[in-house]
Amino acid sequence: MRQQHYFMPTLRDNPADAETASHRLMLRAGLIRQLAAGVYTYLPLGQRVLRKVQNIIREEMDKTGAQEMLLPTLHPAELWKRSGRWDDYGQELMRLKDRHDREFALGPTHEEAVTALFGNEVKSYKKLPVTVYQIQTKFRDERRPRFGVLRSREFVMKDAYSFDASPEGLNDSYRKMYEAYTAILTRCGLRFKAVEADSGTIGGTGTHEFIVPSDIGEDTIVCCDSCGYAANIEKAEVAPAPYDAAAEHAGQPAEKVHTPGARTIDEVARYLNVPQRQIIKSVAFRADGQTVLALVRGDYEINEAKLKSVLGAGHLEMLPESAIVNEFGSAPGFIGPVGAGPSVKIVADYSVRGMNGAVCGANEPDFHWVNAVPERDFHAEYGDLRQIAAGDCCPRCSDEITFTKGIEVGHIFKLGTKYSEAMGAVFLDENGQARPMIMGCYGIGISRMIAAIIEQNHDADGIVWPAAVAPFHIHLIAVHLQDKVQREAAERLYHLLREQGYEVLYDDRDERPGVKFKDADLIGLPLRITVGKKAADNVVEISVRGTGERFEVPEKELWKLIRRYVEPYDCK
Amino acid sequence: MRQQHYFMPTLRDNPADAETASHRLMLRAGLIRQLAAGVYTYLPLGQRVLRKVQNIIREEMDKTGAQEMLLPTLHPAELWKRSGRWDDYGQELMRLKDRHDREFALGPTHEEAVTALFGNEVKSYKKLPVTVYQIQTKFRDERRPRFGVLRSREFVMKDAYSFDASPEGLNDSYRKMYEAYTAILTRCGLRFKAVEADSGTIGGTGTHEFIVPSDIGEDTIVCCDSCGYAANIEKAEVAPAPYDAAAEHAGQPAEKVHTPGARTIDEVARYLNVPQRQIIKSVAFRADGQTVLALVRGDYEINEAKLKSVLGAGHLEMLPESAIVNEFGSAPGFIGPVGAGPSVKIVADYSVRGMNGAVCGANEPDFHWVNAVPERDFHAEYGDLRQIAAGDCCPRCSDEITFTKGIEVGHIFKLGTKYSEAMGAVFLDENGQARPMIMGCYGIGISRMIAAIIEQNHDADGIVWPAAVAPFHIHLIAVHLQDKVQREAAERLYHLLREQGYEVLYDDRDERPGVKFKDADLIGLPLRITVGKKAADNVVEISVRGTGERFEVPEKELWKLIRRYVEPYDCK
Repeated sequence: MRQQHYFMPTLRDNPADAETASHRLMLRAGLIRQLAAGVYTYLPLGQRVLRKVQNIIREEMDKTGAQEMLLPTLHPAELWKRSGRWDDYGQELMRLKDRHDREFALGPTHEEAVTALFGNEVKSYKKLPVTVYQIQTKFRDERRPRFGVLRSREFVMKDAYSFDASPEGLNDSYRKMYEAYTAILTRCGLRFKAVEADSGTIGGTGTHEFIVPSDIGEDTIVCCDSCGYAANIEKAEVAPAPYDAAAEHAGQPAEKVHTPGARTIDEVARYLNVPQRQIIKSVAFRADGQTVLALVRGDYEINEAKLKSVLGAGHLEMLPESAIVNEFGSAPGFIGPVGAGPSVKIVADYSVRGMNGAVCGANEPDFHWVNAVPERDFHAEYGDLRQIAAGDCCPRCSDEITFTKGIEVGHIFKLGTKYSEAMGAVFLDENGQARPMIMGCYGIGISRMIAAIIEQNHDADGIVWPAAVAPFHIHLIAVHLQDKVQREAAERLYHLLREQGYEVLYDDRDERPGVKFKDADLIGLPLRITVGKKAADNVVEISVRGTGERFEVPEKELWKLIRRYVEPYDCK
Repeated sequence: MRQQHYFMPTLRDNPADAETASHRLMLRAGLIRQLAAGVYTYLPLGQRVLRKVQNIIREEMDKTGAQEMLLPTLHPAELWKRSGRWDDYGQELMRLKDRHDREFALGPTHEEAVTALFGNEVKSYKKLPVTVYQIQTKFRDERRPRFGVLRSREFVMKDAYSFDASPEGLNDSYRKMYEAYTAILTRCGLRFKAVEADSGTIGGTGTHEFIVPSDIGEDTIVCCDSCGYAANIEKAEVAPAPYDAAAEHAGQPAEKVHTPGARTIDEVARYLNVPQRQIIKSVAFRADGQTVLALVRGDYEINEAKLKSVLGAGHLEMLPESAIVNEFGSAPGFIGPVGAGPSVKIVADYSVRGMNGAVCGANEPDFHWVNAVPERDFHAEYGDLRQIAAGDCCPRCSDEITFTKGIEVGHIFKLGTKYSEAMGAVFLDENGQARPMIMGCYGIGISRMIAAIIEQNHDADGIVWPAAVAPFHIHLIAVHLQDKVQREAAERLYHLLREQGYEVLYDDRDERPGVKFKDADLIGLPLRITVGKKAADNVVEISVRGTGERFEVPEKELWKLIRRYVEPYDCK
């Protein structure tokens, strides 16, 4: 492509409102422009990267046997009402009315549309398993779109859905997607971690996030370098700490003390002059109708997803204050496990077990117990109820763990039958029994992958594209176009390189060499070939964007050197 | 692809609500399913065809030097208000409000978005010309979506926009697109006509439609087989008929007759017992403030686009009845050219010129003139004001013309500066003068192209895909899968064919042969290879869907025969 008429407006200065490197560089290198908050145009250079990533995704999806299709963007409201998400999805779901006043959603994800389709079209176990995927523009009305295409309101995504007849089938489909995602991200030049994650509101029984470590990431992951354990901080397991069982029945007896007005952990710690880690935090919930008192060491927080899972509860909510007063005889702030009524189920985080000589609420306004000892003064079930924190060890190998921020670029879920039951997607099994299809869903954010690639691959001068997703392989620059020898050498090379299957951006602009080199660094193609004074001797310079290496080579030695860094790629 | 688990639900019977062959066959062959009125899912087989067509379009666009990009679907309302189309576009423009109550349109076309972008980013003639294109889902809230994907509300389109510094540049960009469209439609196996068209409300100075002849088409085109002239019926020129100038001053004098209550052409013809072709139809307009009386022979209709063009008028509207009474002294139905006041400009269609002895309104209630003779009894300017009709000759060569219905699959426009002026897209020319960019816009309906391909390529049994857009090249069928010899031969061929680069759909279903053959005809892949009894002798059958030919060949002769019909195609 000749740069003179290539629509690639580069910017010399950093745009004021771009906070992250990828956002700044995508604007400056002429990959994107904003049309509205969180709504971006992909200029030709950006579109080339989008297509490269899409092609890699298609290849890896097709290898697994997944079938590409295209579901609509306009979804009738009834579809989302059947799954319950018309109300649950909230303001992120963009909605409109057509000329007949019928309501539609703009698809932010396609579980409803694809499940309804399979429910209509697939009737027998003989047609299962099937995994379908699509590459499509999605819409989510983010409250705070930011960081360019990293969190935008209109974005390109690959989503896939698997339909199986058995849980083992789902495991197999899920594994194939896990492997395909690993291959995709690897080929795109990303360093990433596949981490165990929380399935959150989407439901389901197992899920992994594919996280690209980056300081601008909104997720935090926990990793162990020794054994390779990795999980989202929300999901990471916390191993039980050792405790001295003999100590449980020793020590001073518990004693009720007056703590007027001291309700929070902080207030109690100050009033009694004890560290927070010596206080038992007690929080009351209702789980499927049962009153539950959950306990955790005062310097930790209860993780509700874990609590729900330990309780095996379908529905979990905080107990309202009036109910607390009614059931515990005291307002929140003074409740605790010692002397709690028999109707209250007490579950404690492992961190509570070794707290001999602890402080906890006395279920009496303005009073706490001190010197309380678990299992001497109250009984509880113990489990993993809290979020992992600095100082914790790896739950698998007890070695050190690290906390890393990262960008979620992919997410795979075992959905199970949540949607197939809601939408009536059933099939007849070998025995003629109707059963709901067992589903998985799998998403990769293509737009945000590009931002993540740039976050991981840039320097002070600009982008440093991995070859597989670079918009072109080679930036060809003639230093002085007015010089006939240089111009003719560059033109000849331009044709030769393209004949060999390389994608070449040829800077044929009548600009100063400094401007050309600055733009070349900014755009960041893997190789730059510079045709300068030595063109007269058939010598050109190759520079490698990633390493800064420079080679002056006779033209005939060019090809071997190029092939060391990039392979010709048929971009059709 | 193995058919057993390929998501391709075929239907035995014709769906009740599908009126056209393409709609029926796309549903029956499992290419599409409807999600809402005018909103369709492309199933895997349909998506493969979409991708084939898209790839052909990309190749031909790239050859012209056009640059692919991706503009957003969400357009802020302000953008459309600047061009005036927020109001003009009417109910077809789908609109929504975001969580902050800001208004957006869902892009039905992208002149506004692309013109605003170029206005911001391109400042100098040095960066022109540029043509950009995109392949994207568009939204139009059709009042009456029908015929499946032929007229739908969500559809895939390729749109392109050219920006030039001069009218000659625009002509060149336009010609390139004309040639690319010709190549695209030809490669997709369509028989089509590029016809002169009316630029309608989109504005501009020249335009061609690419029309695929089909009885279900909503457009009518006029063609001359002798000289190749072709035009949309709205735009087709009508040549002046010969007339006898000497007769103009002969004949009986005009006479005013009483025609009580006879206002319409039909009423006057009956009352005076004359043929309609003997009456002059007189219609009053206001053109840029000037009162105009337009005349046409009674059995023809005035074409307002032509009248506007003959008058060179910017704004044309029918004169309201009150103004007619005021300016002509009579209600419509009795007005005419004889004795019309000097403030009225009289323009007549060529068909009026030879009407010696005509009837026309007398500008007096309940009176008409008879025996009126143009140029004896009134003066007029003559031009081409009417729509072409049966009986007319070719405007170029005077030979016979035919009228054909067709489907518009492409449309190219010379826009000129309509949008660049409205959106302020100016550049500095060689002399530093600011000038509006000169634009063209170019669209191909990809979804409807697929319907048009099927309309032209099907028979009673199903689709007959042109090889270039067929979802697979070869349908491989094992007649009896339980037969070990047949099954192993089919499996071996399946691998061999794919190794050779062919796209193969392998019917590995445990179904009766009749069901397999019926589905194969319905799906309509170019070649079918049937592995039957003779597999034991290494002989298979090839049948050609398009011609019905069948060949029994030894496996080693297969390859030459296949290559006669389809070329291996890299589907990456």
